[in-house]
Amino acid sequence: PPAHHLLHSGYSNDTLRRWQSSNTELHPHNFVLPLFVTEDVSGEIPVVSMPGVSRYSIPALEQYLPSLLDDGLTSVLLFGVVPSARKDSVGSYSCAAGSPVVLAIKMIKTKFPSLTVICDVCLCAYTTHGHCGELHEDGSINNTASVNRITAQALAYAKAGADVVAPSDMMDGRVGAMKQALQREGLSGKVSVLSYAVKFSSSFYGPFRDAAESAPAFGDRRCYQLPLGSSGLAHRAAARDVAEGADMLMVKPGMPYLDLVRSVKDAFPHLPMFIYQVSGEYAMLHHGAAAGVFDLRKILSEVFTGMRRAGADVIISYYTPRVLRWLKEDHTAAGSPLL
Amino acid sequence: PPAHHLLHSGYSNDTLRRWQSSNTELHPHNFVLPLFVTEDVSGEIPVVSMPGVSRYSIPALEQYLPSLLDDGLTSVLLFGVVPSARKDSVGSYSCAAGSPVVLAIKMIKTKFPSLTVICDVCLCAYTTHGHCGELHEDGSINNTASVNRITAQALAYAKAGADVVAPSDMMDGRVGAMKQALQREGLSGKVSVLSYAVKFSSSFYGPFRDAAESAPAFGDRRCYQLPLGSSGLAHRAAARDVAEGADMLMVKPGMPYLDLVRSVKDAFPHLPMFIYQVSGEYAMLHHGAAAGVFDLRKILSEVFTGMRRAGADVIISYYTPRVLRWLKEDHTAAGSPLL
Amino acid sequence: PPAHHLLHSGYSNDTLRRWQSSNTELHPHNFVLPLFVTEDVSGEIPVVSMPGVSRYSIPALEQYLPSLLDDGLTSVLLFGVVPSARKDSVGSYSCAAGSPVVLAIKMIKTKFPSLTVICDVCLCAYTTHGHCGELHEDGSINNTASVNRITAQALAYAKAGADVVAPSDMMDGRVGAMKQALQREGLSGKVSVLSYAVKFSSSFYGPFRDAAESAPAFGDRRCYQLPLGSSGLAHRAAARDVAEGADMLMVKPGMPYLDLVRSVKDAFPHLPMFIYQVSGEYAMLHHGAAAGVFDLRKILSEVFTGMRRAGADVIISYYTPRVLRWLKEDHTAAGSPLL
Amino acid sequence: PPAHHLLHSGYSNDTLRRWQSSNTELHPHNFVLPLFVTEDVSGEIPVVSMPGVSRYSIPALEQYLPSLLDDGLTSVLLFGVVPSARKDSVGSYSCAAGSPVVLAIKMIKTKFPSLTVICDVCLCAYTTHGHCGELHEDGSINNTASVNRITAQALAYAKAGADVVAPSDMMDGRVGAMKQALQREGLSGKVSVLSYAVKFSSSFYGPFRDAAESAPAFGDRRCYQLPLGSSGLAHRAAARDVAEGADMLMVKPGMPYLDLVRSVKDAFPHLPMFIYQVSGEYAMLHHGAAAGVFDLRKILSEVFTGMRRAGADVIISYYTPRVLRWLKEDHTAAGSPLL
Amino acid sequence: PPAHHLLHSGYSNDTLRRWQSSNTELHPHNFVLPLFVTEDVSGEIPVVSMPGVSRYSIPALEQYLPSLLDDGLTSVLLFGVVPSARKDSVGSYSCAAGSPVVLAIKMIKTKFPSLTVICDVCLCAYTTHGHCGELHEDGSINNTASVNRITAQALAYAKAGADVVAPSDMMDGRVGAMKQALQREGLSGKVSVLSYAVKFSSSFYGPFRDAAESAPAFGDRRCYQLPLGSSGLAHRAAARDVAEGADMLMVKPGMPYLDLVRSVKDAFPHLPMFIYQVSGEYAMLHHGAAAGVFDLRKILSEVFTGMRRAGADVIISYYTPRVLRWLKEDHTAAGSPLL
Amino acid sequence: PPAHHLLHSGYSNDTLRRWQSSNTELHPHNFVLPLFVTEDVSGEIPVVSMPGVSRYSIPALEQYLPSLLDDGLTSVLLFGVVPSARKDSVGSYSCAAGSPVVLAIKMIKTKFPSLTVICDVCLCAYTTHGHCGELHEDGSINNTASVNRITAQALAYAKAGADVVAPSDMMDGRVGAMKQALQREGLSGKVSVLSYAVKFSSSFYGPFRDAAESAPAFGDRRCYQLPLGSSGLAHRAAARDVAEGADMLMVKPGMPYLDLVRSVKDAFPHLPMFIYQVSGEYAMLHHGAAAGVFDLRKILSEVFTGMRRAGADVIISYYTPRVLRWLKEDHTAAGSPLL
Ligand SMILES: [Zn+2]
Ligand SMILES: [Zn+2]
Ligand SMILES: [Zn+2]
Ligand SMILES: [Zn+2]
Ligand SMILES: [Zn+2]
Ligand SMILES: [Zn+2]
Repeated sequence: PPAHHLLHSGYSNDTLRRWQSSNTELHPHNFVLPLFVTEDVSGEIPVVSMPGVSRYSIPALEQYLPSLLDDGLTSVLLFGVVPSARKDSVGSYSCAAGSPVVLAIKMIKTKFPSLTVICDVCLCAYTTHGHCGELHEDGSINNTASVNRITAQALAYAKAGADVVAPSDMMDGRVGAMKQALQREGLSGKVSVLSYAVKFSSSFYGPFRDAAESAPAFGDRRCYQLPLGSSGLAHRAAARDVAEGADMLMVKPGMPYLDLVRSVKDAFPHLPMFIYQVSGEYAMLHHGAAAGVFDLRKILSEVFTGMRRAGADVIISYYTPRVLRWLKEDHTAAGSPLL
Repeated sequence: PPAHHLLHSGYSNDTLRRWQSSNTELHPHNFVLPLFVTEDVSGEIPVVSMPGVSRYSIPALEQYLPSLLDDGLTSVLLFGVVPSARKDSVGSYSCAAGSPVVLAIKMIKTKFPSLTVICDVCLCAYTTHGHCGELHEDGSINNTASVNRITAQALAYAKAGADVVAPSDMMDGRVGAMKQALQREGLSGKVSVLSYAVKFSSSFYGPFRDAAESAPAFGDRRCYQLPLGSSGLAHRAAARDVAEGADMLMVKPGMPYLDLVRSVKDAFPHLPMFIYQVSGEYAMLHHGAAAGVFDLRKILSEVFTGMRRAGADVIISYYTPRVLRWLKEDHTAAGSPLL
Repeated sequence: PPAHHLLHSGYSNDTLRRWQSSNTELHPHNFVLPLFVTEDVSGEIPVVSMPGVSRYSIPALEQYLPSLLDDGLTSVLLFGVVPSARKDSVGSYSCAAGSPVVLAIKMIKTKFPSLTVICDVCLCAYTTHGHCGELHEDGSINNTASVNRITAQALAYAKAGADVVAPSDMMDGRVGAMKQALQREGLSGKVSVLSYAVKFSSSFYGPFRDAAESAPAFGDRRCYQLPLGSSGLAHRAAARDVAEGADMLMVKPGMPYLDLVRSVKDAFPHLPMFIYQVSGEYAMLHHGAAAGVFDLRKILSEVFTGMRRAGADVIISYYTPRVLRWLKEDHTAAGSPLL
Repeated sequence: PPAHHLLHSGYSNDTLRRWQSSNTELHPHNFVLPLFVTEDVSGEIPVVSMPGVSRYSIPALEQYLPSLLDDGLTSVLLFGVVPSARKDSVGSYSCAAGSPVVLAIKMIKTKFPSLTVICDVCLCAYTTHGHCGELHEDGSINNTASVNRITAQALAYAKAGADVVAPSDMMDGRVGAMKQALQREGLSGKVSVLSYAVKFSSSFYGPFRDAAESAPAFGDRRCYQLPLGSSGLAHRAAARDVAEGADMLMVKPGMPYLDLVRSVKDAFPHLPMFIYQVSGEYAMLHHGAAAGVFDLRKILSEVFTGMRRAGADVIISYYTPRVLRWLKEDHTAAGSPLL
Repeated sequence: PPAHHLLHSGYSNDTLRRWQSSNTELHPHNFVLPLFVTEDVSGEIPVVSMPGVSRYSIPALEQYLPSLLDDGLTSVLLFGVVPSARKDSVGSYSCAAGSPVVLAIKMIKTKFPSLTVICDVCLCAYTTHGHCGELHEDGSINNTASVNRITAQALAYAKAGADVVAPSDMMDGRVGAMKQALQREGLSGKVSVLSYAVKFSSSFYGPFRDAAESAPAFGDRRCYQLPLGSSGLAHRAAARDVAEGADMLMVKPGMPYLDLVRSVKDAFPHLPMFIYQVSGEYAMLHHGAAAGVFDLRKILSEVFTGMRRAGADVIISYYTPRVLRWLKEDHTAAGSPLL
Repeated sequence: PPAHHLLHSGYSNDTLRRWQSSNTELHPHNFVLPLFVTEDVSGEIPVVSMPGVSRYSIPALEQYLPSLLDDGLTSVLLFGVVPSARKDSVGSYSCAAGSPVVLAIKMIKTKFPSLTVICDVCLCAYTTHGHCGELHEDGSINNTASVNRITAQALAYAKAGADVVAPSDMMDGRVGAMKQALQREGLSGKVSVLSYAVKFSSSFYGPFRDAAESAPAFGDRRCYQLPLGSSGLAHRAAARDVAEGADMLMVKPGMPYLDLVRSVKDAFPHLPMFIYQVSGEYAMLHHGAAAGVFDLRKILSEVFTGMRRAGADVIISYYTPRVLRWLKEDHTAAGSPLL
């Protein structure tokens, strides 16, 4: 072959391979840990469908976090889980001063002030019907009322000390509404908005709904979450949220949508790009490794490297505790920034 | 929000969602079935690590294919599996006139002439050391000798009647060598070259090596397969193969590399793009569904839709028989071209 | 020739040709049927200049639709036809609660709720002068009054249950006006706007004006429909409508403007692109086939494939009933998604 | 609407519309007339399937041309038509010194030296089987032999005085072969190559095969003419021919492939782009006008304007005599360069 | 040389050269005639510095135009010339109902309604200081006051019947102000804005200032006209005016700025591009021809062809009467659309 | 206007205007002086049609150069002028060891070794017929013989000490031939090739042919110089010469082709771009200034700034002596790099 068609020489040892893979390294700050917070008193309760993941009461959380910070944890993403009795048709408890998320924010900001707190903002865990917004009588989404409610929820978290509010509801116009509300309250300089801008109506969410007790009681979310095949709407949603002032963008789920991480990052290179490795991905990789299909550590290294290669700056993953531990071991042993 | 920031109206029913997902539909001709062909007499032998997948002798294959064609199968990808006794250090049996792949091509072209036959071209199933090329004494790849050998292998398949030869070895310059050899033999108008142009050194290949009995006896393939994080080399390899005359391109593995399907398709929009859902992906999805993480049919619909959305024209998958059956049922039932 | 200049091998059998033609397949959901709805009692009245096309009363329409749905029809585009007595200089009947289009929407949404209903929005069928807008005394277009009127017409259709309103009038600023009106009425999440953004002042519209009884009484439409040779205005009109919130775009006529389908789709890849095969195209193909110039089914397959290749996601065609029938036959017979 | 969304003012009178349509004007030199030349003695013989088109003997041609030149004709495209007795399996008469095309070239260059003579180069009118190349025994194309033969044919025309040779056969590598042969013969500075680079396997060719008596006796041309839906192969074929030295490019058929005129012209802006309005387009427009669907002159003005707008510099059309007459009348009457 | 490096064959005769020069043809509608209109009673007064150019009173203009229309004139650009007594420091006479430009518009629209009337909009001919805007006390431009004044001037012309208003002043924001004012007055659908977007502070304007009696009394225009070497500001000015709603763009002067015609047309392909061959260019070509350096007709053909090649759709030139006469002669003589 | 539409602030003083005009500065090394060298004994002979330009004998040249070097001259472009007796049909004296150009090179390299010597390479000054190449019997160009001859001419200059050979003949393939010949002679490391790649068949060359006594005796140069309107051939010629190894590119003439300077420089940004202000431009500017149309120094400043703005790195101009003097004065006076 012509000399300029020879490529092997470019990746014939580990150093060359690292140079060729620049900007796909994994560091502790590339990972965010999602946490399910309850008002339960029973402490830590395992989520059956997600082996290795639990829900925590505030005191249990206070006990759980120190070793994670010791391993390098820099940020958490909080989800509230409340009993049925707290739920109503408009999700009013989402804004309550005593909600588990508000309490968790206050505890963390007191005890572990260095930890960056991101709060998921959505109604589905607080409505009896399990939809992400308030509904019209005919069961369709009332977008205006929904945006007002989740804006109030975001403000409640912001006032409690959250660093980042992250609307996951996919209502039209909620990023702009939150930015304006934060500005009115004088919080716009302290609290940023991470938009779940590109969130698909996926079958990979099953185990999460078990964890968060948030499955819809009827219907589905296909009128606000994106159709699986639509890259056009994905780009338009990201563009819309950027125009409304989003500080960061997210693509969700993760691995099955790496193409959109790539093209959305290319379209909006100036915003940090988040990727959410969702519950179904977590469980699938767990069961694959358990069945001997692959080695868990090697496969996670490949999967996370791929997310970084696709353009993700930050990875939200339930595997974060294990990853932090492995990264720490690597540094102790050999100074390697690779998993 | 400003009226032009409202997106929900664009996907509020099934027809609108299909319009938004245009060109991600799944048809029978979007799928290729990989087949492991043996010279065994025992007929069909299940591959333990890939539940539902078997190796076939030629007669068993002849019995297996009719129902698949009946369901709409249009193309197969052949891999040969031979006993240790057939292997040597240079993989000479890869070019043998009586190799199982050559025999399978002849049988298929005689009995099922409408079926497009793609043949994987590589030495790893024919060498005692299990590497994809011939080696220098120091164990490193002898690129020139390797290219000569796999070009001979490709010619043997082309002469036997293969429609497409598909080099998976990642040696430098093999696409150009094959195109020239085909031209010399007067086969350049009938036989095309599908390049495994973007093939990574992945941990998702484990079960395949069991199926094809082709695991390397020592070392690994990181000096010819691409580093996991390198999109630069991936693009350069595709560009190189296009310049050497490749008729079609492939990205492998599939889902964990959707970002590269997107960016390579954007860079080379004029060539059909193939994606290989590899053995580890197959098994992982199988075990995830078996454990109740998700419904297999729904998750495959999402995964394959995502591959099409990312830019893949053709999907190579061990799930092809099930997909063809589902597509047929859909048409029979409701006229829907979606899975 | 150099080996990489050989192309024949890439399309030497049917499967290869399909891979090379990926994303030009024709499915039922790629087609929309335009329907002329009257308040006549006489049922179905053939349109002389468009052999095979009729105008329908509401009851006749109710009888006509079931077999089409059975063949896979997913969407219709409604045009109203009213007697001269209903017309005035400002087209006020266009917004009437008892207009044939409003009645047709209600009937369809009651009897055939799965059918997506698109309504053409324009005044030309309701004005005595046959122009698409209200006029100043000097006969020139009164853009402000026209936009107000067609916005009211769009709202009437939206309230009656239309899924999509499609302004075809080419007035300046009507997309933005409609999106705002829909938002004010709380319909912005359910009703989308398909803009006839790129509509030329064509000689291919003749038979339609016969069908819709909407020919201008004096003058022509060259001051609001686009000049035939102007790709610049075409692009600027599309960009303007996207900025005003259009959910989908259309190029009209179809085949003679495929260059603009291509370049407008390239400029706005994230919106579904519609193409309207207009009455003159319909009649021309009919007469060509009748005279033996070509076979109708083959030529339609070529013409529609070309529209998809040029970038159209949805095709509005009077041939839709025949195409659906052919697609159904193909699937029954051979599983082929091609016409 | 915002003031910058107003477009009507940009095209409110005829002069403004012309400025908006700049570079789509039609001039005599934008048109080429295809001519069927026979060795018949009977003079002019009408082609039944193409009303208004005839085949000409050399003397009849000599009588026909003067009035066309008087109307502004600048270029013709010659096709030879020979009786069955002249045909054989390899099309050897295509290169004959006494073939009607060679004789026609000599007559024109003697009598009408200002006329630019383009010669179609292909075997299908000279082979008994009617295919565009020589065949292997199994009926497939022998590309090497075919390229040699049509290169000889091109040379015969070049030596007789042709200005442009135009290979329409779609064999791989024939443009390069012709440029090299012309260079060897010292004709490379005088004779240019117009490549039918983007020629589809269309159903619009029917009447032509009647005119040229060149229908294939068996099989079809789908292995060398392009698949209808493939813009990828179209672009690769154009790129290949440019790399081999083509002086001009063609897309064929015309109106149904305007999207490719646009995208190929954009990709190769530095070569004159030809478009061939083929026999089926000619007949379809004729029958449409005859049936009253539209006015022929208006519709041709729209169709040809569209071809220029799409990027065509030169239009090959059987309507050329009528167009030249109309252009002349316009200039005599009103100075207008529009049809 | 390699055969594909041979170019001579592509332009070896006149027809081929025209095909290679497609879209640079010159038509009557590509030319606009600038006219200086006075309130003088003396009729036609030659401009000494521009041999062959005169100033006209309204009656003289009425006598002058018929023969030009007979030769194909489609558009004029009007400049007013008033005596010192009409001037003041703010150019208030620019908006006067009885100004020569207003009277000329009314006369033309009455007597020659087919003629498209463009009006130069600027204050320099109406201010005692000769600057293009109103001034602050320190002699610097008062941009706000200036924009208000020239917007009023543009409205006066629009109300009098002008088709196009063309601000040449280079004040910031005047295009947007004019579009809004036209919209408020209901004239936005009839009157378009041609922006002198890219106007340099050139030494080629000398003779014009003599003709229009508009030389600045002190200082120069380098604070609002562009620096000679700045393509950056040129592009930013064009982008700004497009964003404010300009219907057409101009580059001025012409030949010395062809590079910017090319790059601005490439950046804004969707708007008609005007070029102004200014007074100094006119006079220089006149004196060059007079001195025997070149033949005037040949050199103008080359210069105007170059302007079209560079991307100009419309050429404003004092040579327009001669060009129209030559174009007419060419058509009468030989059917040639070239000068 | 919106704040980001305000541009005046960016160029409100001289320093800002310079920043906006970066890279258009004029330095001595941006200018090359063309010189006509004779074997005459009469010394300096004025060229009548180019006031201020003379032809020089070698001794006269030796006297003329010192003051120019003193003013900053860095490079000259040599043209030979010989009496009719030296001319023949093949231009054989072009390669003669005693030709005035060879003698001038040797004199300069001896006396003024710091001066970079560029030699025009063409036959037109040495052939009796005045064409730039050798001819076939029918008067057409013999490209092969011509390339051989001018390659010999280039070698003669290179061996005599020329730094740059500059073929101006527009024969196909001459750049490649010269590079190969220089390589064979071991001169390829010392002598570079400046291609007159983009040279049009212009009417601006008149006075030069007087100066060089090289007007064609019959016919014209339109078969090798480019058609005035063809930007396509211009780009293809530049691309061809770059592929053949040209070290630098030229566009000729200058001001009337600034659009091509821009687009060719954009296409080939990595080669120095030369522009030739030809004799007709020189004379036209001279007569314009003489007639009082503009001030010569100001207008040259504008014209040369424009050439630099368009992308020219080096300007070949007969005004070089005056420019160098002015630049020197500026530096002496005020340190300004502007003319
Ligand atoms: Zn939710
Ligand atoms: Zn291998
Ligand atoms: Zn209408
Ligand atoms: Zn043929
Ligand atoms: Zn002014
Ligand atoms: Zn010359």
